Amino acid sequence: MYIKNCWYTVAWNYELEDEGLFKTSVLNEPMVIYRTADGGYAALEDRCCHRGAPLSKARREGDDLRCMYHGLKFDPSGRCVEIPGQPKIPANTCVRSYPVVEKHSWIWVWMGDPAKADVALIPRGMALDTPGFKSRSGFIEYDTDYQEVNDNLLDFSHLAYVHPTSFGASEDWAYTRPKIERLDRGLCVSRYVRNQDPAFGDKGTGKLDLWSSYDYQVPGVMLLHSHALLAGSADINNDGPPDLSKTPSLFTQYSCQAVTPLADGRSRYSFSILMPDVFDDDWVDEFWKGARQAFDEDREIIEAQYKVKLRTPDRPMIATSFDAGLGQFRWMIDKLIREENTEVAAAARGDVPLVNLPT
Amino acid sequence: MYIKNCWYTVAWNYELEDEGLFKTSVLNEPMVIYRTADGGYAALEDRCCHRGAPLSKARREGDDLRCMYHGLKFDPSGRCVEIPGQPKIPANTCVRSYPVVEKHSWIWVWMGDPAKADVALIPRGMALDTPGFKSRSGFIEYDTDYQEVNDNLLDFSHLAYVHPTSFGASEDWAYTRPKIERLDRGLCVSRYVRNQDPAFGDKGTGKLDLWSSYDYQVPGVMLLHSHALLAGSADINNDGPPDLSKTPSLFTQYSCQAVTPLADGRSRYSFSILMPDVFDDDWVDEFWKGARQAFDEDREIIEAQYKVKLRTPDRPMIATSFDAGLGQFRWMIDKLIREENTEVAAAARGDVPLVNLPT
Amino acid sequence: MYIKNCWYTVAWNYELEDEGLFKTSVLNEPMVIYRTADGGYAALEDRCCHRGAPLSKARREGDDLRCMYHGLKFDPSGRCVEIPGQPKIPANTCVRSYPVVEKHSWIWVWMGDPAKADVALIPRGMALDTPGFKSRSGFIEYDTDYQEVNDNLLDFSHLAYVHPTSFGASEDWAYTRPKIERLDRGLCVSRYVRNQDPAFGDKGTGKLDLWSSYDYQVPGVMLLHSHALLAGSADINNDGPPDLSKTPSLFTQYSCQAVTPLADGRSRYSFSILMPDVFDDDWVDEFWKGARQAFDEDREIIEAQYKVKLRTPDRPMIATSFDAGLGQFRWMIDKLIREENTEVAAAARGDVPLVNLPT
Repeated sequence: MYIKNCWYTVAWNYELEDEGLFKTSVLNEPMVIYRTADGGYAALEDRCCHRGAPLSKARREGDDLRCMYHGLKFDPSGRCVEIPGQPKIPANTCVRSYPVVEKHSWIWVWMGDPAKADVALIPRGMALDTPGFKSRSGFIEYDTDYQEVNDNLLDFSHLAYVHPTSFGASEDWAYTRPKIERLDRGLCVSRYVRNQDPAFGDKGTGKLDLWSSYDYQVPGVMLLHSHALLAGSADINNDGPPDLSKTPSLFTQYSCQAVTPLADGRSRYSFSILMPDVFDDDWVDEFWKGARQAFDEDREIIEAQYKVKLRTPDRPMIATSFDAGLGQFRWMIDKLIREENTEVAAAARGDVPLVNLPT
Repeated sequence: MYIKNCWYTVAWNYELEDEGLFKTSVLNEPMVIYRTADGGYAALEDRCCHRGAPLSKARREGDDLRCMYHGLKFDPSGRCVEIPGQPKIPANTCVRSYPVVEKHSWIWVWMGDPAKADVALIPRGMALDTPGFKSRSGFIEYDTDYQEVNDNLLDFSHLAYVHPTSFGASEDWAYTRPKIERLDRGLCVSRYVRNQDPAFGDKGTGKLDLWSSYDYQVPGVMLLHSHALLAGSADINNDGPPDLSKTPSLFTQYSCQAVTPLADGRSRYSFSILMPDVFDDDWVDEFWKGARQAFDEDREIIEAQYKVKLRTPDRPMIATSFDAGLGQFRWMIDKLIREENTEVAAAARGDVPLVNLPT
Repeated sequence: MYIKNCWYTVAWNYELEDEGLFKTSVLNEPMVIYRTADGGYAALEDRCCHRGAPLSKARREGDDLRCMYHGLKFDPSGRCVEIPGQPKIPANTCVRSYPVVEKHSWIWVWMGDPAKADVALIPRGMALDTPGFKSRSGFIEYDTDYQEVNDNLLDFSHLAYVHPTSFGASEDWAYTRPKIERLDRGLCVSRYVRNQDPAFGDKGTGKLDLWSSYDYQVPGVMLLHSHALLAGSADINNDGPPDLSKTPSLFTQYSCQAVTPLADGRSRYSFSILMPDVFDDDWVDEFWKGARQAFDEDREIIEAQYKVKLRTPDRPMIATSFDAGLGQFRWMIDKLIREENTEVAAAARGDVPLVNLPT
């Protein structure tokens, strides 16, 4: 079960070539996405309604797609506009289209009722070309459900064991409980890890207090901000967000990350880092190299965990106090799914007018 | 579900080596086929009745097969003729054998009641060594059900999109509806495609009318005949079969093709072309090269289509007017299956004597 | 279904490195095994009870394992002894541990009620370092159930067809019925094969009578002893165990073999040979080379047989007189499983106090 009325990231904007077709899948629904002449996007179900041939093998004809099996042609809305050799086109000759927009350098697809596809529901983020920043970005795919990746990102205690070298994380990460605040469709997770050795770009500053804080919003979108401060800064700020006028930042970065369920047991994990222009490229590259290594470390342990889960689906998981974040987030996703199902059931009974829900 | 009382092609005759065992599968039933000393063939279930070891790993001893696990020996009828160390052979010690014959250079196996295995039910065809012709032949296997391949061969409108270069097919193929006639266990599909540019071996003739006609019979056996005629010939012949005394043929070929369900989701597609001896080898080879490329093009789109079908088994297919042939043929196969099931059920009730139905 | 109250071999003792973790699976239950400082062993379920990460990726800390996802630490009994950042450890924070011992150079794991784990139930065997013997040992894995391997080892008539060269076995093996005696949890299978050509190390002795006898005990543990004797020895010994004072042994060997169900459809087959020190190394190596080849020959036919079985699970197997041994052994295993289930059911009703049955 997945939230349907939700925006899901499918790609970085630069992954879609001007004339090409981008083939992907969200919530088990294969689709093909492409840029249109007006600067927008079209996202169509990857299945011709005639004999089921995939439209990801179609030929582009302007903003339309021509199926390369028997030649049916579809416009960006999914309507069939030509059946070769047959003048009349029945009204049901169409394929599903999805609302699709670009924001924060990501392409987002809406999987539920198109009438509810409000771009204001896209979580906060930072475009790769945000002025004043240097950015790096990429993605990997996981053979796991997306929730296992969400779990990972909502409990940074794993840094102590999974990323001791790539992120230079000490075991203190496993002993530092974050502050977790509720957002409208997510959580905000913040912490100081005190008195750490510098992991990157040691400038002779001595010990550091590492502050980090991130929004984590459904279905799995993170905007993280972190500062390295002189040791003692956490106390000066009373464990709250740093006042940089009192406790100057020695190092800072933003990171945008998003997890998308491509299908059951298959996920896409997109990520970027952004650092102020004042940092030189070597430093950005060094940090990025560590981050890439860390993402592979995550994948390795999460895929191993997921294999165990597939084998033992009925075994309980014994919670620890560090599961607070992931537990709340799973509860939030389940609640949104339940509400959607209630709404759909009510509409089926006739209690509620159901507008435009795709079938 | 498949038609049981039916001949299925399993191989070209040259694929069976004199002393070798040919391992294959038809309708999910693995079998081993070999030539016998009398010039005939034997086809046995690929499973020893003792402990289930495959007979495709057996040792030939004359016309018999010796299982290479514990040494049971079977004759071409499937009867066990020796159990090492055990003088008495119980009557039920046997493996299933299948009626098997050679015709039109193909080896055919009958999958139903052996008493009904009438060679007259083998569809029309042309042997590879038909006097007066040069032939080429081959086969490929598909990761699809056989019906998807039948569908493809019963709707040549796909030539316009799948084979624009390999067969040099213009988009006119997608706009030209064929004449479809009912045969006893199949269809005859005929058409002219008018006013086409020569695709192979242009001899400065100008535009051509392309006539083609094929039998397509259960379970999926095609005998195709085609002529390239001077433009205008279709009108002279009133869209009927060409009278070559009035409209001489500039190019002609026959093609035999057969689709066999090896198993659910796995098919074998055999094909040949035959051209009159007057055509030089280069021309035959050039045409054959295009045909081989075209068969791979078919496989690519059909396997892609089949993957979509596996994923969306309950989604409807919206018919177009070009689906007439494939629709009738699927109906015909379903009807034969229904009739067989009715007959078996009646026999089970005792209404009808059931002779020799293999168990 | 498997016998639970039973010792299963998981490895040769030399497969466990001093500081390493040995990852395996028995009866579909993945586990991790390691040596402890006291010279013993620990065997833990390969699943952290927190979020399910595999403990085979854990870090050893002395005799404890630290899960490398979030840092929970477990002792050799499976008890959690540390949750980083959480002082209180709930009592249910533990993973399953298995009784594990070393005997006959093998590591054995007990899969049932720990209270019943009596080392006296380990079948007879010979350690690789038995004084007076040279030994060779190894293992292979099979894509079959373990019962197919048991079947193979309980019917040596297959030697005639599967191992004519590797073991130099003549077809007489397929015509010689063994004597089969019942043991407490197994069978003893003995035979002479008379008047055979020497297969290994011909010393100009002329024809030989080959005597062999083996214990075969649940779940699939063999201790085999064989002698090559001068032709005529079988008669002198009245087909009984050879009296070596009357019929001297020209060649003798022991072999220990064990089959372990790693999982449904996946088995481990371990084997050794032991020959008296008087045999020179070349001869031992030559015999071992043949044995290794023979084990691969077995694997090939058994895996082929198993594939057929998976495809035709409901087809009967027609028994021959040579199936007596495997038939009795399968009956014996089924009986032990039935008895265990009866006992568990009675305990569930409260008829019987059930002690320590792992959940």
